[in-house]
Amino acid sequence: MPTVRQAFVHRFAASAPDDLDAMEAAVRRGELDPAGIVAVLGKTEGNGCVNDFTRGFASLALKQGIAAWSGRSVESVGRDVAIVMSGGTEGGLSPHWLVFEVREAPAGTPAAALPALAVGVAMTRPFAPEEIGRLPQIRATADAVAAAMRQAGIDSAADVHYVQVKCPLLTKARIEAAAARGRDVATGDTYLSMGYSRGASALGVALALGEVREGELGDGAVCARPDLYSGRASTSAGIELMENQVMVLGNSRAWAGELAIGHGVMQDPIDVDAVAQALEQVGLRAGLRLADADRARVAAVLAKAEPTCNGLIRGRRHVMLDDSDIHASRHARALVGGVLAGVFGDTQLFVSGGAEHQGPDGGGPVAVIARR
Amino acid sequence: MPTVRQAFVHRFAASAPDDLDAMEAAVRRGELDPAGIVAVLGKTEGNGCVNDFTRGFASLALKQGIAAWSGRSVESVGRDVAIVMSGGTEGGLSPHWLVFEVREAPAGTPAAALPALAVGVAMTRPFAPEEIGRLPQIRATADAVAAAMRQAGIDSAADVHYVQVKCPLLTKARIEAAAARGRDVATGDTYLSMGYSRGASALGVALALGEVREGELGDGAVCARPDLYSGRASTSAGIELMENQVMVLGNSRAWAGELAIGHGVMQDPIDVDAVAQALEQVGLRAGLRLADADRARVAAVLAKAEPTCNGLIRGRRHVMLDDSDIHASRHARALVGGVLAGVFGDTQLFVSGGAEHQGPDGGGPVAVIARR
Amino acid sequence: MPTVRQAFVHRFAASAPDDLDAMEAAVRRGELDPAGIVAVLGKTEGNGCVNDFTRGFASLALKQGIAAWSGRSVESVGRDVAIVMSGGTEGGLSPHWLVFEVREAPAGTPAAALPALAVGVAMTRPFAPEEIGRLPQIRATADAVAAAMRQAGIDSAADVHYVQVKCPLLTKARIEAAAARGRDVATGDTYLSMGYSRGASALGVALALGEVREGELGDGAVCARPDLYSGRASTSAGIELMENQVMVLGNSRAWAGELAIGHGVMQDPIDVDAVAQALEQVGLRAGLRLADADRARVAAVLAKAEPTCNGLIRGRRHVMLDDSDIHASRHARALVGGVLAGVFGDTQLFVSGGAEHQGPDGGGPVAVIARR
Amino acid sequence: MPTVRQAFVHRFAASAPDDLDAMEAAVRRGELDPAGIVAVLGKTEGNGCVNDFTRGFASLALKQGIAAWSGRSVESVGRDVAIVMSGGTEGGLSPHWLVFEVREAPAGTPAAALPALAVGVAMTRPFAPEEIGRLPQIRATADAVAAAMRQAGIDSAADVHYVQVKCPLLTKARIEAAAARGRDVATGDTYLSMGYSRGASALGVALALGEVREGELGDGAVCARPDLYSGRASTSAGIELMENQVMVLGNSRAWAGELAIGHGVMQDPIDVDAVAQALEQVGLRAGLRLADADRARVAAVLAKAEPTCNGLIRGRRHVMLDDSDIHASRHARALVGGVLAGVFGDTQLFVSGGAEHQGPDGGGPVAVIARR
Repeated sequence: MPTVRQAFVHRFAASAPDDLDAMEAAVRRGELDPAGIVAVLGKTEGNGCVNDFTRGFASLALKQGIAAWSGRSVESVGRDVAIVMSGGTEGGLSPHWLVFEVREAPAGTPAAALPALAVGVAMTRPFAPEEIGRLPQIRATADAVAAAMRQAGIDSAADVHYVQVKCPLLTKARIEAAAARGRDVATGDTYLSMGYSRGASALGVALALGEVREGELGDGAVCARPDLYSGRASTSAGIELMENQVMVLGNSRAWAGELAIGHGVMQDPIDVDAVAQALEQVGLRAGLRLADADRARVAAVLAKAEPTCNGLIRGRRHVMLDDSDIHASRHARALVGGVLAGVFGDTQLFVSGGAEHQGPDGGGPVAVIARR
Repeated sequence: MPTVRQAFVHRFAASAPDDLDAMEAAVRRGELDPAGIVAVLGKTEGNGCVNDFTRGFASLALKQGIAAWSGRSVESVGRDVAIVMSGGTEGGLSPHWLVFEVREAPAGTPAAALPALAVGVAMTRPFAPEEIGRLPQIRATADAVAAAMRQAGIDSAADVHYVQVKCPLLTKARIEAAAARGRDVATGDTYLSMGYSRGASALGVALALGEVREGELGDGAVCARPDLYSGRASTSAGIELMENQVMVLGNSRAWAGELAIGHGVMQDPIDVDAVAQALEQVGLRAGLRLADADRARVAAVLAKAEPTCNGLIRGRRHVMLDDSDIHASRHARALVGGVLAGVFGDTQLFVSGGAEHQGPDGGGPVAVIARR
Repeated sequence: MPTVRQAFVHRFAASAPDDLDAMEAAVRRGELDPAGIVAVLGKTEGNGCVNDFTRGFASLALKQGIAAWSGRSVESVGRDVAIVMSGGTEGGLSPHWLVFEVREAPAGTPAAALPALAVGVAMTRPFAPEEIGRLPQIRATADAVAAAMRQAGIDSAADVHYVQVKCPLLTKARIEAAAARGRDVATGDTYLSMGYSRGASALGVALALGEVREGELGDGAVCARPDLYSGRASTSAGIELMENQVMVLGNSRAWAGELAIGHGVMQDPIDVDAVAQALEQVGLRAGLRLADADRARVAAVLAKAEPTCNGLIRGRRHVMLDDSDIHASRHARALVGGVLAGVFGDTQLFVSGGAEHQGPDGGGPVAVIARR
Repeated sequence: MPTVRQAFVHRFAASAPDDLDAMEAAVRRGELDPAGIVAVLGKTEGNGCVNDFTRGFASLALKQGIAAWSGRSVESVGRDVAIVMSGGTEGGLSPHWLVFEVREAPAGTPAAALPALAVGVAMTRPFAPEEIGRLPQIRATADAVAAAMRQAGIDSAADVHYVQVKCPLLTKARIEAAAARGRDVATGDTYLSMGYSRGASALGVALALGEVREGELGDGAVCARPDLYSGRASTSAGIELMENQVMVLGNSRAWAGELAIGHGVMQDPIDVDAVAQALEQVGLRAGLRLADADRARVAAVLAKAEPTCNGLIRGRRHVMLDDSDIHASRHARALVGGVLAGVFGDTQLFVSGGAEHQGPDGGGPVAVIARR
């Protein structure tokens, strides 16, 4: 009989991008085994846009911390742990860390009666610059999602509720390297390349989970066919890698523990019905707000936010796209953060922006991890 | 038998601060009688802070429009109509106008079976600069609230659910005028004087409605005793007046029509229970969100937003007060706007900032006007 | 002998976008004849970007003021007076109005010994949406510049030192109107259309002044050939017109008065040599800074500001294009405003952004009007 | 005969807050001895306000870099090297590092014919929270400046041209610790405490250099007597220390090398005469701009920027203090940066904000280090 694994999700408040005090205390108390950390998601308080250095600051501090606690080198931590920093805590959103830890249950531990939270990670090959934002990245991401599902012991796409992907972006140097080999790239704009890479990665998830058909896909679809999307993908681009790092979250009978995950797809930024759907999947009832007892069962909330392209929310005009003082993605995170805060009675929510092909226009996935 | 009056609340979308197209069309269609307008509240898309000129722009355009439609002078419109512009449509908030119109019901019209929306307006005497933000402004405001209640035929403070006050502020010239008479003022900082005037006005409402006792009040209480507040006041300061303009909204059997108003007091920025309370008072049931049929009954939603002073929301840190890129009041409006948008399924909400003595720290009144 | 004209340039401080007090006082004192106003340039304190409503607010207040003072209708003022509002007073820039007035000199007045400031205005035909940002707008603008030169009695392009153009932009409605006639437009992005219209207008000026050859021009050149530009054009787009309004400023012996204009072309945002060149043309010596006596001779300073596209200024990196908190054009105005403030010892400078084809990349025209 | 020392000033461009590539290359080439670094000033691209984490990010990366290159621990580097990060590169300012290195000249090296750049560092005792922003901090800082002068072999205050001070600030914990001992603090507002600490530190420099008399000083003077200031102090507050770190820059015959320092005191943000004065002291002639050959001699430019409190610059209104979108200190840095960029023909300038008691209202010190 195979060893039963158990996934743990730790949520720690951060008083600054480099604040690891709460995490370190948990390590000291033996509640968190740094050697078991497979991924860390961080919500930092920068602007979440181009010049947001809180992400790099948090990543640097985090890698050093985990390395010190687990006696590994900073490089090996960077290689073995998926580190995804999302900037922007607008409105009432509260900066925090989400640490995913996997332990082997003691020999002989039975699997959970109900499917339990399962975590699988996988990586694609490094991409050539000309592959980023195009079909090769889509296909390789789909393969990595499948591999991560196998690694997690998740048989059916229906049991996958959230897929976090960290993907590369184009830099001037990378574009020139491609040009030197006579290859053009998806876009010459390094900033836009983040969107193309996020979009292709999300379409890769959609392909793996059967949300789109391979025939519908092509280079031309990326950032051009909003009707093609995954309701379970959350992708973010970073400069420090050339491959895609994939973390699949789902439920599996091969895992132990009380934690489970569910999700819904918000059709617009104020779609609370999708939240209710996610809550029901983990056995929680959404009313006007979560009951206090239920709130204590919630381990993590993950959602995507984007402004609607037509400038409307249910027929009402929003100003996000016309505001030259506050970036549209900041307005969008503030809005979705407020909508979720009302339902959950909590502001420690992982709401991130940049939702190309991650849910419908202006909407996006919302996932809830909770103790049954 | 006294004439029965009926209050109408018109809500018009605005594509810019000076966009009166929807309002003008209603006038043309005879749905809105410009001569009956007693007050206009406008949510404009500026920053809602010091250098927000969308308020002045909207006021100028509005006065000219009403003057043209009703054949009055711009001056008389400015004198007769309470015009309150609130800047800031962060997150998903949608710029719009709320027009309050009062008509006499045809002779013999019976009053409503249930108490109906009643509107009363009154004005204080002009204040001397040294009175602003102090006891004389508090007392005079309380008297004006009482007068507005009488004018509206509202007998009991319990029937008052929202009191809008427009109040003056201090300018360098006004401070010097007081000094020339040997009088000091509440603050030499013209920006802070807006808060003192809003605060004293709100305490005046609280005094009139029995929410605070006269003995608790004094110059020292303004902006210093957060425990003293009104759960029904919404005050805003403007440079163009020296008196307080008061509009009382409540329910009265002396009025006709289906509209009624209710309110709750949000204890913090994500307190949806207070929204449920306001909805119940007008016969609507709050669940995860309003039913579509019920949403159509809502004529207006009015709320106040402020960051909590301790930097926390239910124990979670927020960054509003530490953000030097986005003003704290903008974060707060975005958050409360999101919380309400989730419940109402709508973003056309009148959420304004600057809530000194208007609800508890970080919270504030939320009022709903709806057809029963 | 033809009547001799004289141009006057009045500079008034503004304490807010709608502050006309100083202008009105000048009218009252008889120093400014409102009937003689041909153009007003206004530097307002908005963000100078998409949601800058200080421009519309200032325009509305200004038209009403001039109409009231001169007994004309607001419409006729809007038609007869070129009104150009430029938002953005970053750094130390001071909000102000520049009023251009033309009077006929008393019969028999001799022309100035030296060429004097000459002002000419002209208008193109209204453009069809599909013409905006393309060759037809370029050619029509060139014709209008020639007409304005004739009207000003300026014979040679060498005597033209500054050409202000106000041009239209595309709106969704205008794009659809063109599509209904089976025509496509330069860009479907309404915001980008402002740049295309400014760029085509500037190329029209360049064509009229012989700065580019007709053979070099085509639809494809607009916003794509930075090497083609005018060193004397300043263009701004507005939603309220469909034609191009052109004001030419130059020197002519047919005009009287002490005022004269000169210009230089800044090669980058810190190119003070170009300022020295402009000053010398009006008989002023640029040193470390203008001597106090010379400063009093300066009537107006007009300049364009843009970030360099390569992210460098003389090999040093700037952050303008990477800053998601402050728009690049705001950084650029602040920088050029500071450079000029040091030389002129004054911050009441008309520095505007959006310099497509107006000077080289990152640079732009700088013009000085002064009493000889 | 005492050993002759030589000071080196290295200026390195930064492509991000943690970019040490240029510095590391200099170490590799043997041009910079990491063991000789006494201070590093960094201009980073954050907002320079409360939530600017680029300073902490840069400090962390820098300490690790120097530690790695010099085989020291991060802690010892933090203790031995004065690290001062200044956020804010508005307008055209270019992010960069200024590294101050001191070497012993080979035995027998004669001192420079002319006084050469001399660097001295000293530290105060750690302060109790209740001493910060008050007389004890002023006095201790003055003593440290005197000690740093002795250490640098600078005999006369007239030879001191720039004093950089890093000082502590108050936190909630520190305020409570003082309260627990029955002591009150200068201010309960942790943000304001930065200004009090900077101000008291600057007054300490002024006292040491004879710019103010001890009799004029008292707790009440800090942040209340703008007429008392140092024309050579540049102070910045940090959370990571409780003592004051002082670096004195001056000229001394006991030092070797071609570098020298001069300074002027800008009377307002556009006072180029003060720049000319600083340049003349190091043998450079200021004209409209520096000659190219002279520009190559400049090793560093250091200046302070602040908005004028009365809202005016030479009688012209500025909007810095009324802008709720861009912090006043950001406008001020952009303005001063532009003024200096015009004169120096360079944007790699160390312009920092927060100038309490550092120069007159709206003005501040400007220092130039150059090769004679």
